[in-house]
Amino acid sequence: MQKLVEVDPWKIKQNELGFDQRPYESIFSLGNGSFGQRANFEEKYSGKTLLGNYSGGIYYPDPTKVGWWKNGYPEYFAKVLNSCNWIRLDVEVDGFSLDLSELNVKSFYRELDMKTGILSRKFKVELPNKKQITVSAQRFCSMHNDEVGAISYSITSDQEVNINIDSFLDFDIKNEDSNYEDYFWQNIEPHTNEECDLIIAATKKTNFWVALSQITTLNIKNDNFISSYESTKGDRFISRSFDCVLEAGQTLTTKKYISVLTSLKYDKEKLIDLVKNNVLQAKINDFEKLKTDHSEAWQQIWENADIQIEGDIKAQQAIRFNIFQLYQTYNGKYSYLNIGPKGFTGEKYGGATYWDTEAYCIPFYLKTSNSSVAKNLLIYRYNQLQKAIENAEKLGFKNGAALFPMVTMNGEECHNEWEITFEEIHRNGAIAYAIYNYVKHTIDYEYLEKYGLAVLVSIAKFWAQRVNWSEDKSKYVILGVTGPNEYENNVNNNWYTNYIAKWCLEYTLESLKRFPKKIQLEETELNRWKDIIDKIYLPNIHGTGIFLQNDGFLDKEIFPASKIPINQRPINQYWSWDKILRSVFIKQADVLQGLYFFENHFSEKVIKENIKYYEPLTVHESSLSPSIHSILFSKINDHKKAYEMYLRTARLDLDDYNHEVHEGLHITSMAGTWLSVIEGFAGLRVNEKGLYFKPILPEQWHSYCFNIMFRNQRVKFDIRKKSSVLINYGDQAINIFTNCKPYILEPHSKLTIVC
Amino acid sequence: MQKLVEVDPWKIKQNELGFDQRPYESIFSLGNGSFGQRANFEEKYSGKTLLGNYSGGIYYPDPTKVGWWKNGYPEYFAKVLNSCNWIRLDVEVDGFSLDLSELNVKSFYRELDMKTGILSRKFKVELPNKKQITVSAQRFCSMHNDEVGAISYSITSDQEVNINIDSFLDFDIKNEDSNYEDYFWQNIEPHTNEECDLIIAATKKTNFWVALSQITTLNIKNDNFISSYESTKGDRFISRSFDCVLEAGQTLTTKKYISVLTSLKYDKEKLIDLVKNNVLQAKINDFEKLKTDHSEAWQQIWENADIQIEGDIKAQQAIRFNIFQLYQTYNGKYSYLNIGPKGFTGEKYGGATYWDTEAYCIPFYLKTSNSSVAKNLLIYRYNQLQKAIENAEKLGFKNGAALFPMVTMNGEECHNEWEITFEEIHRNGAIAYAIYNYVKHTIDYEYLEKYGLAVLVSIAKFWAQRVNWSEDKSKYVILGVTGPNEYENNVNNNWYTNYIAKWCLEYTLESLKRFPKKIQLEETELNRWKDIIDKIYLPNIHGTGIFLQNDGFLDKEIFPASKIPINQRPINQYWSWDKILRSVFIKQADVLQGLYFFENHFSEKVIKENIKYYEPLTVHESSLSPSIHSILFSKINDHKKAYEMYLRTARLDLDDYNHEVHEGLHITSMAGTWLSVIEGFAGLRVNEKGLYFKPILPEQWHSYCFNIMFRNQRVKFDIRKKSSVLINYGDQAINIFTNCKPYILEPHSKLTIVC
Repeated sequence: MQKLVEVDPWKIKQNELGFDQRPYESIFSLGNGSFGQRANFEEKYSGKTLLGNYSGGIYYPDPTKVGWWKNGYPEYFAKVLNSCNWIRLDVEVDGFSLDLSELNVKSFYRELDMKTGILSRKFKVELPNKKQITVSAQRFCSMHNDEVGAISYSITSDQEVNINIDSFLDFDIKNEDSNYEDYFWQNIEPHTNEECDLIIAATKKTNFWVALSQITTLNIKNDNFISSYESTKGDRFISRSFDCVLEAGQTLTTKKYISVLTSLKYDKEKLIDLVKNNVLQAKINDFEKLKTDHSEAWQQIWENADIQIEGDIKAQQAIRFNIFQLYQTYNGKYSYLNIGPKGFTGEKYGGATYWDTEAYCIPFYLKTSNSSVAKNLLIYRYNQLQKAIENAEKLGFKNGAALFPMVTMNGEECHNEWEITFEEIHRNGAIAYAIYNYVKHTIDYEYLEKYGLAVLVSIAKFWAQRVNWSEDKSKYVILGVTGPNEYENNVNNNWYTNYIAKWCLEYTLESLKRFPKKIQLEETELNRWKDIIDKIYLPNIHGTGIFLQNDGFLDKEIFPASKIPINQRPINQYWSWDKILRSVFIKQADVLQGLYFFENHFSEKVIKENIKYYEPLTVHESSLSPSIHSILFSKINDHKKAYEMYLRTARLDLDDYNHEVHEGLHITSMAGTWLSVIEGFAGLRVNEKGLYFKPILPEQWHSYCFNIMFRNQRVKFDIRKKSSVLINYGDQAINIFTNCKPYILEPHSKLTIVC
Repeated sequence: MQKLVEVDPWKIKQNELGFDQRPYESIFSLGNGSFGQRANFEEKYSGKTLLGNYSGGIYYPDPTKVGWWKNGYPEYFAKVLNSCNWIRLDVEVDGFSLDLSELNVKSFYRELDMKTGILSRKFKVELPNKKQITVSAQRFCSMHNDEVGAISYSITSDQEVNINIDSFLDFDIKNEDSNYEDYFWQNIEPHTNEECDLIIAATKKTNFWVALSQITTLNIKNDNFISSYESTKGDRFISRSFDCVLEAGQTLTTKKYISVLTSLKYDKEKLIDLVKNNVLQAKINDFEKLKTDHSEAWQQIWENADIQIEGDIKAQQAIRFNIFQLYQTYNGKYSYLNIGPKGFTGEKYGGATYWDTEAYCIPFYLKTSNSSVAKNLLIYRYNQLQKAIENAEKLGFKNGAALFPMVTMNGEECHNEWEITFEEIHRNGAIAYAIYNYVKHTIDYEYLEKYGLAVLVSIAKFWAQRVNWSEDKSKYVILGVTGPNEYENNVNNNWYTNYIAKWCLEYTLESLKRFPKKIQLEETELNRWKDIIDKIYLPNIHGTGIFLQNDGFLDKEIFPASKIPINQRPINQYWSWDKILRSVFIKQADVLQGLYFFENHFSEKVIKENIKYYEPLTVHESSLSPSIHSILFSKINDHKKAYEMYLRTARLDLDDYNHEVHEGLHITSMAGTWLSVIEGFAGLRVNEKGLYFKPILPEQWHSYCFNIMFRNQRVKFDIRKKSSVLINYGDQAINIFTNCKPYILEPHSKLTIVC
């Protein structure tokens, strides 16, 4: 854990420049669900940096790189693509490049205001000729209009200086994460006219088109407009360069308006006109108006999604940072987009869609947004069902069985390690679980009939073919899987996988009954499902209530993670892979993930027994782990551990627990953080009848307060030591179930609960 | 199975040219233990071909290519390097390139005479101008002087023609098996003088130097010597070109003498002088003399190593092909060389040393050569012991424990799949077993004390650290391994691995007792070994005598391989990897490999039970499998199955069973073929007291006859239906044990055995 940023309830602040900007570039990233970027400096920086501009859904199918090819491997691994760098402003003062890594930096300050979504920066440097330059910059990716971004960049000098500013739309970028060092773009066309610059390019192979436009204005003191410029069209860029003389004490302000559009949203032939109009409109609106609209959009989001924590400023900052990043990543408008593990903050992991979306993000969006957001995420999978069926066929399954990919952009599998791709099949379970979760929250049975059911049936068919009958055990078994705990590979009878497979079959049968005419299945198929439900292997450890992680687990040397020498943590950085696999240590919640999903199937005693057994063996080297543990610790009233796990998940990136924040943020696990407050501390559950609520207050906190969306009505919870106040802002009464008694929360009314 | 070549007792013959030369290039490969090559044509060929010239021990450490890096991975994968192409003769006749893929081929014949080791070729083509050209070529890599090769290439025309011949030493070659398409050579220097051409080059990174020289002579009708030439020095080649006019009916003969030397054998600065002298000497000797010396060297080898089979010409051809290829690959002179799975016949698999050497090749060389050959192979591992200790340290082992690499050139691991590299640890067992085998054959205890013991102790230490105590089983277990059956990965308690680990500890303890002062170990270490020997987990299947392949095996769906649809065989070409892993099918002998090694530890009943259980589940998709099965079937007197398995291993490449001969030959498995005759049909065993002998005669054979070397004495076996005749060519009497009674085979005498 290291101190990267200052603590503040609403802001992220950096006071020291440092040399390696990459951790800060991740933390200060901006995005608006459609496009986004790392917090690279506008001007040149020759220190350590990782350039990143990304357009949602734009990917490149990089040929798979493996040591030994295995049958069934996907042919490519989809890469999150570095797209056009639109923030680039090359600045020269008296012929010296403004480069914070080269100049004498007198002061540096960077701030992300999460309330308004504005990234700002202020610094003072001394040039080799001893003149002092102060820069003040702001920028944002508009949440109000997710096709627009803007920069304001002001330069003041203590003496007269010559300034050259060159404003770029620059496709001369490359991916750090590239298997064969290819350049991924083609057909790059720069355009320019009096008012604005444009560039359009296509991705190789996938032929996505991305168009950008920019208008760059320069003013001195708001009245002295600089209009003469020189345009340069490069092979991969367009730029517009301005020269001026700045008198001592004067301020030169550059404003840069941009628009980004892609062919995912618009017809290719319309892109140029649209992107040009957009940027003209943005300039007419002016930076201040755009900024106000943007900040108001954030205000709207915070109204629903904010969590206020009193008495614990670190926790407060952290939870807001998590919520802020989630909404920057996915705005819920487009069913062709999803939530990459690193969002718009880095390239790593490729692909956009993991089971993280279903297991972690959907519950977050379900409770903080209109239900259409979660629905779009579910329809994304529905739209990819055919590809999931083809994926299963490649592995030898038939008759419409579907295996959704472990990692994907377009529905095709693009992970290339067999132990993950072929074996981490529990993802199919999480996708079914998200359907169940969505329906439970929304009672949207129309969705279930129209979309969900087909997905469930194909998933159920997969499980029915994937199990086999063990003569030896007289049970159905599932062989050769990797569970959520990726520190075991190719194991038999992973309890979590077996359990969720069984549950999928049950839930699909139940859903089929609701729409008996929608999908007709053979009696033999249905009977097999029922037989599997009855006879699947789900062992306990020697007559205890503890479920067996997987076959062979008890052959391991069992000792708690606390006994691992501290200089060997995280073990994935210090131990060889075979040692990790043989060890008893669990990367992330696995049996416990199952107990979290299906908590009502088990007694509190059983849940406690399992936590007590597995938690000491868990090393939490997946960012998805501590949040689930936090929720379960809240459930069993272990406040101390719940809070410890909460802090670990909440400040994972801000405090860079795993020494990897420079690669980008752990976006999807941030949803887990949110869940550890709402489902953990507040003990909130949704079922068809209403809300269940059993809060605890961490002793470090005076109170906490949040809203949730329940069937598109906003409900506020204010949780204090002795009571909780609930406000229903909607038009429908809501049933509230608590530990002591049930209540009815009337429309537009307040309810105080003491129990 | 396809018919590629004609059946003949001593020759391999090809009558049809075909388009794809690659299968033939593999089958007709030449080598002499030091260097070798695929049977590429001397002249240009623009059809399908895989160029291959190789120098033993010369490799390139190609950076490892994997999808996701895992801790402990080796940094590179050693590649068998394509070295200088010295056979190249570009021939133009009347300006037409002599290219069999382009011209009208009237006849084509190629022959490998295994008795003499000569590759010859004869063909007739018609040029576009209707002139007919006949070519007759011969070449060899000298077994008499393993630094020399020679080609004789004769051209006859039915009409007067202009001929240009350009003779190359050509480093402008590339590896098909290359991770990043790199060129692996540098510092290439061509030299030329009146008499000869030279080229020297260094491998990148490893900086091995390879020097070649050539002398090219042209004669018409043996008297008309063509002496005017033109030399060309390219960046990567040197060539010498000749022009002449050939009258109708005349024959132009080109003779090319070459020498190849490497810095593995000589000082770098001496290479040029040595290689020049070598080629001058070769030319003085003349082609015919070199050829005679070469053929006599082969005759020597055949004297010890030949197997004569009467009544079965296919089996006869096959066994000679196997023996021929083994001796072409490894001549036993150099302890820095080893036996690559493809020898000098292809690039695939990289590296030179697998456990194949110890498990298959050493028993072959032990019985066909002077014991120094096997000893050199053992010393090769001894020389790499320190690297094996470092390899184990990388994986977390300590205190001198060694894990020998799965694949290596220089002692460092260079395989890059975790399930093989980290988990296929049974290779350590095979290395210990080879020491035991060598000592049993040779009673060379001096070797054991000086070299073997240190290797054994480090291997024993490895096993002692690699097991762990299972509280659940109250046994020592070995978790996370891949056995010889690579169609299971990351399994627990592979019976073969557990058994050989136990045996290694026993044999090391026994060996330590023989030399009590050589290596001192702590009492606690020795006690742990003894405790493991007592308490290692080695289960049978439900009270039968059948050993359990590995934990979880009985959870699989068990049905015989014969039920797999024929269009899904081999399964590794049709099934996805996860399906293979979940299936019950065994790639190669695994439990049975253990029963083969340790046959005296088990009753014949137990061996029979295990064969009966595992054989139907075995798909033999490793070339190493059928031979072991053949030996075991001989042992249990199932002659029919023994013969079926023999044919499968013996003609694997000649009949291209697995559709992969174009990549090269399965050199190491050829030793298994030999074993299936000697240890299988002949039932020959060696122990400290003498030879044990229990022959069977396959019903397809009239008789078979072979020699073995026993303690550096040659013993001949002539096995017929009713009797066997043994001849001892040595000076020492030998004890012979048979099924009925023991004999003494006196020096220089003959013994007829009927029983």
